[in-house]
This record gives sequence, C-alpha cells and structure tokens, in this order.
Amino acid sequence: MMSDVADVDVAIIVGSKSDLSLVKGSIGILEKFGLSYILNIASAHRTTQHLKQCVRSAESLNVKVFIAVAGMAAALPGVIASETISPVIGVPVDSKSFSGLDALFSIVQMPKGVPVATVAIGETGVINAAILAVQIIAVTNRSLKEKLKTYKNKMSEDAIKDDFELQKNGVEKYLRELRK
Amino acid sequence: MMSDVADVDVAIIVGSKSDLSLVKGSIGILEKFGLSYILNIASAHRTTQHLKQCVRSAESLNVKVFIAVAGMAAALPGVIASETISPVIGVPVDSKSFSGLDALFSIVQMPKGVPVATVAIGETGVINAAILAVQIIAVTNRSLKEKLKTYKNKMSEDAIKDDFELQKNGVEKYLRELRK
Amino acid sequence: MMSDVADVDVAIIVGSKSDLSLVKGSIGILEKFGLSYILNIASAHRTTQHLKQCVRSAESLNVKVFIAVAGMAAALPGVIASETISPVIGVPVDSKSFSGLDALFSIVQMPKGVPVATVAIGETGVINAAILAVQIIAVTNRSLKEKLKTYKNKMSEDAIKDDFELQKNGVEKYLRELRK
Amino acid sequence: MMSDVADVDVAIIVGSKSDLSLVKGSIGILEKFGLSYILNIASAHRTTQHLKQCVRSAESLNVKVFIAVAGMAAALPGVIASETISPVIGVPVDSKSFSGLDALFSIVQMPKGVPVATVAIGETGVINAAILAVQIIAVTNRSLKEKLKTYKNKMSEDAIKDDFELQKNGVEKYLRELRK
Amino acid sequence: MMSDVADVDVAIIVGSKSDLSLVKGSIGILEKFGLSYILNIASAHRTTQHLKQCVRSAESLNVKVFIAVAGMAAALPGVIASETISPVIGVPVDSKSFSGLDALFSIVQMPKGVPVATVAIGETGVINAAILAVQIIAVTNRSLKEKLKTYKNKMSEDAIKDDFELQKNGVEKYLRELRK
Amino acid sequence: MMSDVADVDVAIIVGSKSDLSLVKGSIGILEKFGLSYILNIASAHRTTQHLKQCVRSAESLNVKVFIAVAGMAAALPGVIASETISPVIGVPVDSKSFSGLDALFSIVQMPKGVPVATVAIGETGVINAAILAVQIIAVTNRSLKEKLKTYKNKMSEDAIKDDFELQKNGVEKYLRELRK
Amino acid sequence: MMSDVADVDVAIIVGSKSDLSLVKGSIGILEKFGLSYILNIASAHRTTQHLKQCVRSAESLNVKVFIAVAGMAAALPGVIASETISPVIGVPVDSKSFSGLDALFSIVQMPKGVPVATVAIGETGVINAAILAVQIIAVTNRSLKEKLKTYKNKMSEDAIKDDFELQKNGVEKYLRELRK
Amino acid sequence: MMSDVADVDVAIIVGSKSDLSLVKGSIGILEKFGLSYILNIASAHRTTQHLKQCVRSAESLNVKVFIAVAGMAAALPGVIASETISPVIGVPVDSKSFSGLDALFSIVQMPKGVPVATVAIGETGVINAAILAVQIIAVTNRSLKEKLKTYKNKMSEDAIKDDFELQKNGVEKYLRELRK
Repeated sequence: MMSDVADVDVAIIVGSKSDLSLVKGSIGILEKFGLSYILNIASAHRTTQHLKQCVRSAESLNVKVFIAVAGMAAALPGVIASETISPVIGVPVDSKSFSGLDALFSIVQMPKGVPVATVAIGETGVINAAILAVQIIAVTNRSLKEKLKTYKNKMSEDAIKDDFELQKNGVEKYLRELRK
Repeated sequence: MMSDVADVDVAIIVGSKSDLSLVKGSIGILEKFGLSYILNIASAHRTTQHLKQCVRSAESLNVKVFIAVAGMAAALPGVIASETISPVIGVPVDSKSFSGLDALFSIVQMPKGVPVATVAIGETGVINAAILAVQIIAVTNRSLKEKLKTYKNKMSEDAIKDDFELQKNGVEKYLRELRK
Repeated sequence: MMSDVADVDVAIIVGSKSDLSLVKGSIGILEKFGLSYILNIASAHRTTQHLKQCVRSAESLNVKVFIAVAGMAAALPGVIASETISPVIGVPVDSKSFSGLDALFSIVQMPKGVPVATVAIGETGVINAAILAVQIIAVTNRSLKEKLKTYKNKMSEDAIKDDFELQKNGVEKYLRELRK
Repeated sequence: MMSDVADVDVAIIVGSKSDLSLVKGSIGILEKFGLSYILNIASAHRTTQHLKQCVRSAESLNVKVFIAVAGMAAALPGVIASETISPVIGVPVDSKSFSGLDALFSIVQMPKGVPVATVAIGETGVINAAILAVQIIAVTNRSLKEKLKTYKNKMSEDAIKDDFELQKNGVEKYLRELRK
Repeated sequence: MMSDVADVDVAIIVGSKSDLSLVKGSIGILEKFGLSYILNIASAHRTTQHLKQCVRSAESLNVKVFIAVAGMAAALPGVIASETISPVIGVPVDSKSFSGLDALFSIVQMPKGVPVATVAIGETGVINAAILAVQIIAVTNRSLKEKLKTYKNKMSEDAIKDDFELQKNGVEKYLRELRK
Repeated sequence: MMSDVADVDVAIIVGSKSDLSLVKGSIGILEKFGLSYILNIASAHRTTQHLKQCVRSAESLNVKVFIAVAGMAAALPGVIASETISPVIGVPVDSKSFSGLDALFSIVQMPKGVPVATVAIGETGVINAAILAVQIIAVTNRSLKEKLKTYKNKMSEDAIKDDFELQKNGVEKYLRELRK
Repeated sequence: MMSDVADVDVAIIVGSKSDLSLVKGSIGILEKFGLSYILNIASAHRTTQHLKQCVRSAESLNVKVFIAVAGMAAALPGVIASETISPVIGVPVDSKSFSGLDALFSIVQMPKGVPVATVAIGETGVINAAILAVQIIAVTNRSLKEKLKTYKNKMSEDAIKDDFELQKNGVEKYLRELRK
Repeated sequence: MMSDVADVDVAIIVGSKSDLSLVKGSIGILEKFGLSYILNIASAHRTTQHLKQCVRSAESLNVKVFIAVAGMAAALPGVIASETISPVIGVPVDSKSFSGLDALFSIVQMPKGVPVATVAIGETGVINAAILAVQIIAVTNRSLKEKLKTYKNKMSEDAIKDDFELQKNGVEKYLRELRK
C-alpha cells in the first residue's frame, strides 16, 4: 500500500522556461507554509502529450491543487482544468503586448463546467496563487488554517507597523529611511 | 459539543438583490452535488457591518468556501477575503458599462497576500464559481470527487452526443430539431 | 488501397452546438466552391479526447485545412493547431462580454511555433475563414484558382453594380428600392 | 471641552508604503494652502480593522475631507466612503498592468449611495486631489477661497508667461533655455 | 444688501437637452436633502458664452457646488472647472460608442491644477453626484450631516432588510415577490 | 475650355451600400450650405480599381474635399488619401464588435505623410464630416464663411433656447413637452 | 488698410510647454511648404481667457487653419473649435496612462456641429497635422497643390528607393548600412 | 517556356524599412524549411503603385503565399489581399501607442470576401507567419509536411528537455545555468 508520505500538495506548471523566475514567488509561499510541490515546464500548445503526462503524474501523487502560469493566448490553465477535477489556479503573465489582458481573458473566460481560479497578473499573481492554494488545502487542515491566520495577522501587523513608523518619523524621515 | 450536522459548505454573498436571479445558477450546481449553502445579500459599501457579521456567522457554521457576486467597483469579494482565511471565489457581474470589465479588474487585481479566485463574467461565472467550490471541497472528500468525475464525464458525453446527433442528422436537420 | 475519392478538403470544428447556426456561413462558401467538408462539435475544455479523435479522424481523411470556431477563452483553434501540422483557421465568436475581444486575444496571440490564422469576429469571420480555406487549397489547384478569380470578379462587379444603381437612381430612390 | 485648534482638515490614506512618495504631491498643495492633515498607511484588504480605526480617529479630529490613494483592485477609497459621510477623494495609482485602468474602474464605478470623487491617474491625481480638497473646504471659508483665486490666477499667469517667453524668444531659443 | 435667502446650493449643468431625463436622479436626491438648485442646459462646444454666463450667474447666487453631466468628448465639467474655484462634480454619460469610456477619460484625466470630481457613468453617476454635493456642503453644516447619517443608515437598513426578507422567505419565494 | 459650372465641391465615398442611410446626415448638411457633391460606393478591399476611378473622376471634377465612410478594418479613407492630395475626412462606422474602435484605429492611425482627418464615430461623425468639409472649402470663400457663422450662431441660439424653455417651464413640464 | 502681407496661414496652439518639442514636427513641414505660422501656449483649462485671445488674435491675422496639440482630457482642440469657424486639427498627445487613448477620445468624439479633424497620436500626428493643414490651404492654391504633389512623389520615390536599395544589397547588407 | 526553377514560394512585404529587422524572424524560418522568398518594402499609403507592382511581380513568379508586416493603421495586408487570390498572412506591428491593438484591428477585421490570416503581434507574429506559410505550402507537398512534423517534434522535444533539465537540477540550479 502506497504511503501518504510520497504525496505532494501542489503541482506548479509553467508554459515556458521564461516563466520560471516568476514562479519563485509561488515557491517561496509554499515553502513558508510547509507544503510540498512539484514544478513542471509544459506547454498546452507545444507539448500537449507531455502536459497530459504531467497532470497524470501529479494526480498519481495525489496533488491537491494545480497552479498554472502562462502568457499571451494562455491556454495552459484551461487545458489542465480539462484534464483534472482538482482546482486549477491560473496566473496570467504580462506579455509585451496588452499588459497581460490577452492572458487574463484567455484564463478567466472559461466555459461553463470547467472553471479556472484566476488571480492577478504577474508577480502579484504568482504569490496570490500560492496563498490561494494554501487556503484551499487548509479547508480541512486545522494546523494549516492556524498558519494562515498567523500569516494574515503578521501581514496585517507589518502593514500597521509601517503606519506606526510613519507616524513616529513623519513622511520625510520615513522616506529617507526607506532609501537607505 | 456542536455537531457537524449544522455545518454549511458554501456561503454565497451577493452585493445587491438585483444579483439574486443570477445566483440561481450557483445554487443549482451546489444542490446537484448535495452541498449545503447559505445565501446573503450584503454590500461592501452599503452594509459593511452586516457583511462582516455574515462572514462571522458563516465561519461559525464552518463554511468552507465563499462565493461573492458583485458588479461595477466590485469590492465585495476582496473585502470578504480580507475578513477570512477561507478561499473566496469572485464572480464579476456584467453592468451596463464596460461589459463587466470594471468588475473583473476590481475582483482579479487583488494585492499580494489577499487572493480572490476569479471566474468568468456573469451567467457562466456563477455556474463555474459553484463548480470550483465543489472542486475545493472535494480536495479531501473522496465521494465528492467521484461525483465530480461523474459530472465531468456526463458533461463530456453530452457534448459528444451533440456531435453524434449532428453527424447522424446533418446540420440542417439538427438545427431544425433544435428550433422545435 | 484507399482512393482519393474519400478525401475531405476542410474540417470545421465548433466549440459548442450554439455556434452551429453561425457556421452555416462557412458551409455556404465551401459548397459554392465545390469543396468537401466534415463538421464536428468538439470542445477543447469539455471533450478533449473527442477533439483529439476528430483531428485524427480528419487527418485520416487527408483534410487539408481546419476551421475552428469558438468564443470566450477560445482555446479550440490553438489546441487543434497543437495536434496537427495542417493550417488552422480560427474564428473568434462574439460572446456577451467584451464583443469577442476575449476570443480574439485567445486565438490570435498564439506562442512561437504554433500559429493560428485568425480572421474577423463572428458572422464575417466564418465567411472569410471559408474563403481563406479555399485560397489555401487553391495554392496548387489551378481550377480552384480560376473559381476564386471568378468569385472575386463577381464580388467586385456586384459592388460596382451597387454604385451604378446608386448613380442611376440617386440616394433617395436607391434607399426606397432597398426597403421594398 | 476640546478646542478647535486640534482639528485637522484632511486625512490622507495610502494603501501601501510604496505609494508614500507619490503622496508628497498632495502634501505640497495642502501646506501651500495652510491646511492641516494627517497621513496614514492602511489597506482595505490587509488592515481592515486598522483602516476603520484611522477613519474613526480622523473623524474624532473633525477631518473634513479624505484623500485615498490606491492601485490595482483599489478598494481603499470605496471602503473609506462606506465608513464616513465626509467627502472621499480617490486617486487611482498606475500599476504595472493596464496603466491604472484597473484602479480607475475600481474607484470611479461606485454603487448608488456611496460616491467617491475620482481624479486623474497618479502624479497628476495626487495634486488635483489636494486642490479638490481645498476647494471643498473653501466652500464656506472665504479666506481659503481668496487663496484659491490667487492660486488659480498665478497658475494662469505662469502659463501665460510661458507663452510670452515663447513669443519673445521663438521656439528654438525657448527650448534651448528649457534644456539649460 | 442681498440676503442669503436667495442663495442656491447646487448648480446642475447638462451638455444637451437629451441629458435632462437622466438628471432627474440628481434632483431627487437634492430635494430629499432640502438643498436648492438651479438647472441649466449649456454646452462647452456649442454655447461657450452662455455656459460662462451660467457659471457667473451661479456664482452670483453663491452656488457652492457644480454638477456637470456630459457625454462623448465631455469637455463641459472641465470647462466649468476652469471658470470657477468651487468644486465641480462630473458625470460621464454613456454614449452609443465605448460605453461612456470616452466621456470618463475626458472628465477624469484633467491636468494639474484643475480637478473635476468624477463619479460613475450614467444613472448611478447622477445620483452619486448629488450625494457627493450634499457631502461637500455638509462639511460645515451640522444638520445636513445628520441627514446624511440618517440617509446612510436608512440605505444600510434597507439593504439589510432585503437580506432579512431573503432569509425569511428563501430565494424562490423572494424572487416571486419581486416579480409581482 | 471646361467651365467651372460643372465643378463639384465634395466627393462622398462609402465602403458598402449598408452605409448609405448613414451618409444622409452628410448630404443634409452639404445641401443646407449649397455645396455640390457626388456620392459613390467603392470599397478599398473589393473594388480597388473602381475606387481609384472614383477618385480620378472626382479630381477631374475639381472636387475639393473627400469624405470617406467605412467600418471594421476601415482602409477606405487611407487608400483614398494615398491617391489624392486633397483633404480626406474619415468617418469610422460602428460595427457590431468593438463599438467602432476597430474602424477608429484603422482611420486615425495613419502613417507619416498621409493624414486622414478623422471625426467622431457614426451618426455624429457623418454630420461633422460634412461641416468640416464646409469649413475647409470656406477657408477662401467669404460667403460660405458667413453661412458658417450663421449656422454656428443658429446652433448656439437653439441650444440657448432649450435652456430658456427649461427655465420658463421647469424640468417636469419641459420633459412632458418633449414627450408629446 | 492692412495688407495681406501680414496674413498668417496656420496657428499652432499647444496645451502646455511640455508639448513644445513635439510641435517641431509640425513646424518643419509648414516651413518646407513656405507657410507662415504663429505658435502659442494656451490651455483650455488653465488660461481660458488667454486661449480665447489667441484665437481672436489668430483670426485677426486671417489664419486659415488651427492645429491644437493636447494630452489627457484634451479639451483644447474642441474649445478652439467652439470659438472659430476655421478648420481645427487636433493632435492627441501620448500621456503616461492609456497610451493617448484618453486624449484621442477627448479630441475625436466631438458633438454634432463642432468637428475637430483628428490625426494620429503624438510624433506622427504633429507631422500629419501640418500636412493636412497644407492640404486644406492648397484647396484653392494651385502652386501649393503642385508642392504637395512633389512632396507626395518624393515621399513615394524615397520609399521605393528603400526597396531598390534592399533589392540591390539584400537584407543583411542593407541592415548593416542602416546601422552605420 | 519559363521553367519552374524560377518560382518563388513566399513574398514578404513590409510597410516601411523600420520593420526590416523584425522580418528576419520570418526569413530564418523560411530558410530552415528550404523555401524561397522575395522581400519588398512597399506601403499601402505611400507607394500604392509600387505595392501593386510588387504583387504583380510576385504573382508572375508564382508566389504561393504573401506575408505582410505593418503597424498602426496597417492597411498593407488588406490591400495586398484585395490584389490577389493567394493567401495573405498579416503580422500586426507593435507601434508606440496601443501595444499594436490598432494594427491588430486594422488587419483582422477585414470585410466579407477578402480575408487576411492574422497572427500574433510583433516578434512572435513574424515567426508564426512564416510557419503558417510553410503549413499552407505543405498542404500538397509531402516532403515539406515531413519537415513540419520534424520541426514540431523537435520543438516539442526541446520544450520537454527544458522540463527534464529542470527536474534534474531543481529551479535554483537551472536558473543559475540560464544566467551563465
């Protein structure tokens, strides 16, 4: 009997190697929350068969959530969603033209029956995709929920601390500090 | 000790009563999958306090996923996401201006740390939001996973049946049949 | 040995049966030019396997050109293009939101190596897709080329005849005639 | 009894510390007109409770106008507007994607009953937000009105002086002067 | 000496008589709050001199706020803002093309020094313009402030009542009631 | 020697007969100002040769200004501009998709050296195209200039009269009158 | 009696001094064609009165055509058009946001009766505005017409020479030449 | 009798010499597949007659497919399509304004009867245009079909190899390698 030890939480798939550096934002979050992940380069248009195998292979590892990162006619998240019943999170990449609106439309406007959970364009998107993945896995995982609360509180406290620093120092000094 | 019986799976929140008829698309899906839900009207801009209470109340019922439906400067999904660590699915509503692009931008472009899982505009979106909610809850629910597979297969078979009908009858006859 | 008689010129694939009535514009053109065609309903997101079989089946019939019609996150043309080396013509369908800009971006912004020949949105697009298919097949088909020249001349003459009618009758009378 | 001396005219709230340098445009104007202000960092999505406290605290200082600066799914101005009956001025920040159109839509398309006074994107916007705040406070403040007239006249005279310089020197020389 | 009795609170100016029916949304709000108003038709492009006289005449009545309603290349609000130091609220009208994006850009993207307080497109905009005008006048008017609080509470209560009705009756019954 | 009597002032060219009813807006203006015109249907894409002949023929009649009306990939005005040194006015037609933004871009974004004087989309555009043509011809025609001044004054007076009617009757009565 | 010698052909008006360097593109063309011009800085929003005087002053010099260059809520061309019956050419300037789409909409979407002849965005636009001005003045000026023909032929020949160079040298060598 | 040896497969036409460096992407592909080509600079707006001659000359060489590259009001591909019955592939160039959306609309929105096969904006587009040209010519060319299959497989294998490298080395090391 296969043990749960080998299970993987999240499968990240990027459309091309040029998106790899972007995806480090997702990885940082997943590691912070102690989630395991696999990472593949697979294209909906260039390596369809390989993409299908990545999805199958991820499913054999009981992957719970997919994160798909793609630009332009970003078919990747949708094609993954057509191959699995697990939640698929799509991150539109900002290509040279249209500020990523092409990728956003291609990812969010999925037809009835095959949703893709779309997040913000680019750098913000890869981070939020990972947090959303954590939130999804935390639905039935009490300790992960606690970590999310801690993370949320920390994020809130950091932002409030920014304000306190600002109040203490005034704008001018605060900005000087930032520039150091 | 509170029993699990009272638990609710999904909390649907719409920004105004004008969005209620739209939301029936979500309800149909949730009922088909045997998920329980609560439904509230609460506005991020007009009933902030009530919205907060809806979220608290939903959390006391151990709601697993939120679906938020809103148009124009659609702050609802984001404000819910700021109040919970559960996954929040946002559905942009097609207002009179901008074909819902205003709502799409307001929902999908969330800042780092507070994701909203955005789906398609309007009628397609409410259906996909519910399916995404089912997928999220199914992550650790084997029987729900089976239902999703059945649903996916059924959807696929229906679409294929459309094609078989088309092949059997030819376009002309098929279209005549549809018009009957 | 299979004879060439069974060969089919064009494979038209629509993403859902709601696009069937639109596709009659393509069929009219293909029939006018004496080209044979097959027509399938197959979705990149709902019936991936069936779509693949449609492409395989079309290739076994030595189909020369594909026409793919789809709306919203219109992955259909691109996914077909990933499965074949034949030219794929994509027609963006005007969905309720964004006047078809979502479909246009999803179809035209294909990554390097996998082109889709994109034509105009909707009703104009299905007609032009068929004419483009004829033009492609005519590249090495002298008699089809002649038919295209005749068609082009006829189109030109009809448009010029409109102008002659206008000159003869004046705007007022011409418009009255049109309204009859 | 609390004296009026402690009253503050304008509360500026920015969504994140990255918007602080931008906001110096507002501060310059307010100081020029002798208006007092407080400045806070508070996010509608990350520090909801803190934001609410900022608004309450501003109201206890009898703040007359709010200026809220935010990018992307810029919910900040709208959420402040939901917490106060004072006028709220919203400045959309130009994020990397969509040239700030996402923020503009999120700020200007507020629902019935909860207006946000939206001004131009970015650098121009923060200046105009402050001038609008002065105009609002000047409604019942005769001396502030006089200052506004002086400011408007000065602005007009400076622009006219530009033209006189141009007439005197000709384009070539004028441009050389500017480059010095 | 002219008494204050003749003073007028708000001057509404519409660009053409076709916008008059729209402006009734503003008037309803102003009357509810007991504010006096004048209403003029004056075009920045067709009746420049008359527009200037309307502004002068409004200023002689000590008008506190201007509301300007215009579509297409909506120069009206900006031109009024160039003629006065009072706050000018601009409402973009949804013309046939571009869903009012042309008017929105023309109104919100004012240059440094001459702000226009822009609100939502069309029907929502005219209502919010009037509420914003009330908020501005209420800055130094305690009783108007109280009315605004009452209005805000009423709006909030009505929205909450919608939710209570929904909870009591369920969606189905609620929708049936609405349709009666 | 050919007399000036046969000269024609304006050549209007529409891309297809479906634009003919629209063009009556231009004709009404030209007739009001006593300008002579010719009207042709000629397409940049379907009847290139005929279009060229129309331009030649117009030039042989000493046509002073061209008005070109076209939708979608509206190449017509630009192609005329490439064939003549006379001013060419382009009117973008609002096609089903993109509210005429496709035609606007195709007409206004001409390359260096070949300008097209672009006016508003559709119904407003055809009227303004004709007025612009009159303005151009009036540059060296004193009596036409007088007519333009009269027209401008009349337009201004009519708009002011609208305002006077409004002041006399109040909004309610005025709107009732309009509806009669 | 004032002689015609003092007459000026074109009045160029820019909205702010930051547009001056752009306008040199227009001046180059006008000088090449031997047309006289005046150049003013005048803002529709900051120096309304001065703008009006510039227009009056231009008219007293019998200026034939106006060129107006402005960005953002570019009211300048339209306000000039409201003050004169001479043709007004508008050049949208590419501001930081929206690639100049805000200025394009503000300039081209003029209401019925007050056209602005709109040309391309920015650098191309200022050149084409000047050529359009020459074309307009050439309507009744035979020698200017000849210059335009020469210019058009020269432009055409230069472009054809580019092609001949390309044919002679091949792409590689041609590109090397260009880089020298 | 002219031999087939002199025949040319593809005619590439660019609108201006500034597009020449871009077009090298197309040439690289054509050479890889052993296709012959001619390359011309010809503008739809500046050298209409020369453009027509280029098309005629290409047709006399039995050119099978046209590739047209143009920006802004990109009339070039459409005008070529009006002159030939051969397939015309259009590549929109990303101009400074609108990220190439102006060129995309001008190329893809062709009227009924005159299709242009539109591909992606800019650098990706020129490569895909050439591949599409190869696909079209391969329709009746078995050996070219084999080359396309090899190319497609190679592309797929390269992309898969990227993934294998990634799996072997991990993201960190892989990115370090890339940066070397």
